[in-house]
Amino acid sequence: MPADRYAVGIDLGGSKLRGGLLSESGQLAGRLEMQTEAWKGPAGVLANLKRVLSQLLDSTDRSRVTGIGIAAAGMIHPKTHAVVYAPNLEWRDVPLRDEIESAFGLPTYVENDVRAAAWGEYRFGAGRGVQSLIAVFVGTGVGSGAVMDGLLLRGFTNAAGEIGHTQVVMDGLPCPCGQRGCVEAYASGSGFVRRLQSALATGTVTSLGEDTGREPARLTAALVARAAETGDPFARELWQDAERYLGMALANYVTLLNPELLVLGGGVMTTVPALAESLARQVRDRTTVVSREVRVVRAGLGDSAGIFGAADRVWAQG
Amino acid sequence: MPADRYAVGIDLGGSKLRGGLLSESGQLAGRLEMQTEAWKGPAGVLANLKRVLSQLLDSTDRSRVTGIGIAAAGMIHPKTHAVVYAPNLEWRDVPLRDEIESAFGLPTYVENDVRAAAWGEYRFGAGRGVQSLIAVFVGTGVGSGAVMDGLLLRGFTNAAGEIGHTQVVMDGLPCPCGQRGCVEAYASGSGFVRRLQSALATGTVTSLGEDTGREPARLTAALVARAAETGDPFARELWQDAERYLGMALANYVTLLNPELLVLGGGVMTTVPALAESLARQVRDRTTVVSREVRVVRAGLGDSAGIFGAADRVWAQG
Repeated sequence: MPADRYAVGIDLGGSKLRGGLLSESGQLAGRLEMQTEAWKGPAGVLANLKRVLSQLLDSTDRSRVTGIGIAAAGMIHPKTHAVVYAPNLEWRDVPLRDEIESAFGLPTYVENDVRAAAWGEYRFGAGRGVQSLIAVFVGTGVGSGAVMDGLLLRGFTNAAGEIGHTQVVMDGLPCPCGQRGCVEAYASGSGFVRRLQSALATGTVTSLGEDTGREPARLTAALVARAAETGDPFARELWQDAERYLGMALANYVTLLNPELLVLGGGVMTTVPALAESLARQVRDRTTVVSREVRVVRAGLGDSAGIFGAADRVWAQG
Repeated sequence: MPADRYAVGIDLGGSKLRGGLLSESGQLAGRLEMQTEAWKGPAGVLANLKRVLSQLLDSTDRSRVTGIGIAAAGMIHPKTHAVVYAPNLEWRDVPLRDEIESAFGLPTYVENDVRAAAWGEYRFGAGRGVQSLIAVFVGTGVGSGAVMDGLLLRGFTNAAGEIGHTQVVMDGLPCPCGQRGCVEAYASGSGFVRRLQSALATGTVTSLGEDTGREPARLTAALVARAAETGDPFARELWQDAERYLGMALANYVTLLNPELLVLGGGVMTTVPALAESLARQVRDRTTVVSREVRVVRAGLGDSAGIFGAADRVWAQG
């Protein structure tokens, strides 16, 4: 039997830098994780990335490595695979692919991190064997990726899947993106923080004030959910809004794409497992008969989805 | 030079039955149109359809015809190409492909009519040469089709693109689909009719009462637009709701798929050309920077889009 080929997968996030070696048969080996250290700027982060890559490449027979796939938290140029803009990394126009290709002499592909994670779930996670899926990740923000008949939807400017900035309320709460009524304004970690900030500033009484030591930035979805359960009216409003507006946005997404599977992942989904059930119910309740057949499941790969997806794009792309 | 091959394209709608011969080079010849006569039931409609097909096939060298494509206004079974349900035709489980294949001995493909029209626009109409598009048709209902990187999105149960039943208002107006707050309840011919019915029933004063001879079913989008312009408050509310909720739904669709082009067609768009401009503006205003680059254009093939799209699926599928 010939030895497996490998692809390197990297998940370059704002706080963590993760990597691993994916075999063609779908096994992930040599998983590594370190701090991204975004404060060091592009040169410092690239040095960290190269260190991780060297470690991974040194751990195997290099001649069996086909290429490198990088999932990056930002907007990726569809042709050059440069990072056009990555707010969490504070990067603008970093020629990531060129840097890595010239350093390691291996074909390199850069994919948006959320889309890479969706692809990972499709090929190796909760979506194994399905024809089409939408994967939605709810954390600090709300992002998604969709695969239809084996095609990962990227869009014309590589910006497909921005469910967090679909509008669910006409002239609703402002969102840092410049629009109003976006899902992220109601149903994301950052949305919760902003709403608590305003509430405390205007004197709203809520136990979340004490729960966070009056530092709204310390608010988590788990804290909101717990305070809502204990009956805090403000927390209850926050949580109900998050559930129903996310439910509406997911239902609309399902109505538009009619996928076989809806995969729910991300930090908020992990810390508050009940949310997935409520969302599954709403997707059924808020869609017409034909789209109701969608199965709604939790993500299967946790924080390795991006590594899987990025590595697999090496083979899927070329 | 070898003679062109042909595919027959049929657009089987609730009121009109249209057909033509599409050459491989993209020319439509021998266009025919007759009444569907849906009141005759499946057997009567199938007889009409076969008559149109015979006429088209007799008009050319049959050996040069590759197959038959039918765009049908209904839900099509993804595998058998039977018409599962077609409300406008009042059909349930009509084995359309089998019927036509056994009658004419030619490979036959059945596609949902809106999706076929979107494919027609992509290949031969307003979308020629683009990588991806969304085509939205606003008439009695609101439907759409999307093509991404050359893939026509059909979905798991062949129901993708139902933008008319995406929700734009939480707990909004009821829609015959059983949901609330659907786009179609605010921005479609049938939605206008239902809103005028309720308004007249509850004594709302509006010039649309006289304009329709107090028969709400005779209401058209053109009447609403004209009465809104003359300052009728109810008509103005109807029209503003239609514009803004359709604008919001289109913006969300663009945010999710990030297409190169958004094509606007259908009866309402044709009778009220100013609507397309208003919607284009809203799509720019209601999306984030990256998706704002979408071009918004009017459909190019009019009521031939379904014929083009259906015929071309013969080659695209076979």
